Amino acid sequence: MTKIRFYNAKILTMKDRNVIDGELWVDGDKISYIGASKDSDINWDRQIDCKGNLLMPGLKNAHTHTAMTFARSLADEASLNDWLFKHIFPIEAKLTGDNIYWFSQLGFAEYLSSGTTACFDMYFNPEDQARSATDAGFRHVFCGSVNDFGGIDRLEDEYNRFNSYNDLVSFKLGFHAEYTTSEEIMKRISEISHKYEAPVFAHVSETRNEVEGCKERYGMSPVKVFDKLGLFDFGGGGFHCVWFDEEDRRIFKEKGLYSVFNNCSNLKLASGAPKVYKFVNEGMNIAIGTDGAGSNNALNMFREMFLASTLANLEVEGGAFIDPYAILKSATSTGARCMGLDDCDVLAEGKKADIVMIDMSHPTMNPVNNIVANLVYSGHPGIVKMTMISGKVLYENGEFKTIDIAEVNRVTAKMMGELV
Amino acid sequence: MTKIRFYNAKILTMKDRNVIDGELWVDGDKISYIGASKDSDINWDRQIDCKGNLLMPGLKNAHTHTAMTFARSLADEASLNDWLFKHIFPIEAKLTGDNIYWFSQLGFAEYLSSGTTACFDMYFNPEDQARSATDAGFRHVFCGSVNDFGGIDRLEDEYNRFNSYNDLVSFKLGFHAEYTTSEEIMKRISEISHKYEAPVFAHVSETRNEVEGCKERYGMSPVKVFDKLGLFDFGGGGFHCVWFDEEDRRIFKEKGLYSVFNNCSNLKLASGAPKVYKFVNEGMNIAIGTDGAGSNNALNMFREMFLASTLANLEVEGGAFIDPYAILKSATSTGARCMGLDDCDVLAEGKKADIVMIDMSHPTMNPVNNIVANLVYSGHPGIVKMTMISGKVLYENGEFKTIDIAEVNRVTAKMMGELV
Repeated sequence: MTKIRFYNAKILTMKDRNVIDGELWVDGDKISYIGASKDSDINWDRQIDCKGNLLMPGLKNAHTHTAMTFARSLADEASLNDWLFKHIFPIEAKLTGDNIYWFSQLGFAEYLSSGTTACFDMYFNPEDQARSATDAGFRHVFCGSVNDFGGIDRLEDEYNRFNSYNDLVSFKLGFHAEYTTSEEIMKRISEISHKYEAPVFAHVSETRNEVEGCKERYGMSPVKVFDKLGLFDFGGGGFHCVWFDEEDRRIFKEKGLYSVFNNCSNLKLASGAPKVYKFVNEGMNIAIGTDGAGSNNALNMFREMFLASTLANLEVEGGAFIDPYAILKSATSTGARCMGLDDCDVLAEGKKADIVMIDMSHPTMNPVNNIVANLVYSGHPGIVKMTMISGKVLYENGEFKTIDIAEVNRVTAKMMGELV
Repeated sequence: MTKIRFYNAKILTMKDRNVIDGELWVDGDKISYIGASKDSDINWDRQIDCKGNLLMPGLKNAHTHTAMTFARSLADEASLNDWLFKHIFPIEAKLTGDNIYWFSQLGFAEYLSSGTTACFDMYFNPEDQARSATDAGFRHVFCGSVNDFGGIDRLEDEYNRFNSYNDLVSFKLGFHAEYTTSEEIMKRISEISHKYEAPVFAHVSETRNEVEGCKERYGMSPVKVFDKLGLFDFGGGGFHCVWFDEEDRRIFKEKGLYSVFNNCSNLKLASGAPKVYKFVNEGMNIAIGTDGAGSNNALNMFREMFLASTLANLEVEGGAFIDPYAILKSATSTGARCMGLDDCDVLAEGKKADIVMIDMSHPTMNPVNNIVANLVYSGHPGIVKMTMISGKVLYENGEFKTIDIAEVNRVTAKMMGELV
């Protein structure tokens, strides 16, 4: 197994706020040591002088549609409904498995270049995505994408197949949303959830219209519908969570469900802003995602962290002022647990080596009055020097080790010509 | 004079939305040709193969306090008043000229690394800032920082001195704000403005408190006070412009004044959000700035552009949906004119060679469905491959040519130890 030693490092494990000066060892796909500098007789495959740069857990993008890179800057300045029905669905109807493979490669490259080491992805053609993720070496957690147009008959098979696919790929039960999924189908998903004692995820309360429509159909909010159908009996959570009321939050809190926020996409589609501070103040499980590149338009977790931290200051008289450490936790350790990646949450011995190196010489990271605040309030993808997943360096100093970015750009450009 | 040829380029001149395929020549500090690829017998000092990357005008940071990099992540989660009076003023009282020089170097490095080629800076110790800017090769426009604590007696001298300092440095009349500057001092500034027929700039309507306080003191908004005192008789403008009413906007529109938005800082300090869409819809002169690193906490014009574009979607039912080209113009050509840099506004023959090269192979810039939308909605400092000011390459592929970033980080870290 490949043995890599990082030395002269600052290490933010995210087990707490402390920053350790020392070294981190990787043995195969796992971390084997974190602590003070020490001698060893290990026959290292590679020794990396971190020169005082920071090692931290990779960012976890807890809600995305990776292959939607095709839709970046394709149809802007539109609200969710128009964007989805007029612009996106007609193109998605044409997408081939090959399209999914290549546009996913582009998304994985963007993740790696911005310090993201895992994504929680809802899309279709999972076989092509799983192949694309595996070729890139990227950690890919599927969320089932069932809706009225299909998917329910494949869900159980996909659940079993992609949970035993390989070490980088896993699968969680999920469906698109209440407004696109009939009660009958949601009941069938609930049955599968009960059979496997597995959590369930879906888009929830993204827009005011969605919640109002659900109340007309069911006389209650989407969260309450899902809860009543037993979809949350084994955990899970929701994406967006913009229009939650107190009762929705109470249900999520009591069941330990995960709320995944997507502020950039919500802003761009004029869907509103989630009350992140209420979730933080109540000690709830929160995570952060970018949503797809079509509605964001980037897959940039740093921008998401800044907005998750600051946007509520517009709403709360005198300022909500969320602790940036709470936001960094949501983007790393809590995000990992949301996706079932309990072994990728923090840097510790025995955990997976999903690690990012941050350039501490970058001007935006100096002076170092507060590393966590610098990361959340000042960070951007340009401060990422290296991204490692499962013990493999996949991105380093601007270069991709597993993805031929020139070829990806060439192929996806050609595909765009055929799609629009 | 140094002659540089950029070829195999895409060129977004910002004279219009068109992207030209071809080349751009630099002769000394000016652009000498933009157009299709062509032969020449020029004895080039350097020929740069752009490999399809994009050349565009440098971003113009139209409101900042560069030397406030010392305050990055130093006092977060506080509203403007507490932040300023409890945290910032006590440290500023200790700042030496040497501090100003070095913390400005850090700021210039951050600008260069993120594609910014000029800043409109309000701070003190202008001699040290001018020296720092000149050593970095950075284009620095001062805005007078007069308030009740000082500056008025030096203003005219500084105006004359720094407008004939060197080609990189210039000076505009300005003062801090209504709430920190007495009527008598504002009248004296107005007299200087009339003497030199020169525009005047100040912070204006940043917080609701400021506007309410001004109404108590003068019975009218800050904009109307400034206008009544003749401060805007020769143009100028305001920083922040968050709490403008229709009448304030009418005055700014009629006089062609510049409104400079600082969304990230306003968000972080819980000051509110300017109604950018109203200014855009009324065809007003708008520009964008970062404010200082203490309240932002980055000097990242890409994040500012994203927020200036999207934040109003929270407020306008159904979405404000601002054209991203209007935002890119404000961050480049209109920003330049706001600062009096009429020869740095667009890429054209005879204009100053203040140019940025954008990495079009970066995943976040692909596919290229719409370059302008990609820049505004997806861009981040990591896509900047090169920054040129006045015909000199100052930043290229992560390296600074005029700034010793390791030394700057070392010195500023030591200074922080002495300041706090």
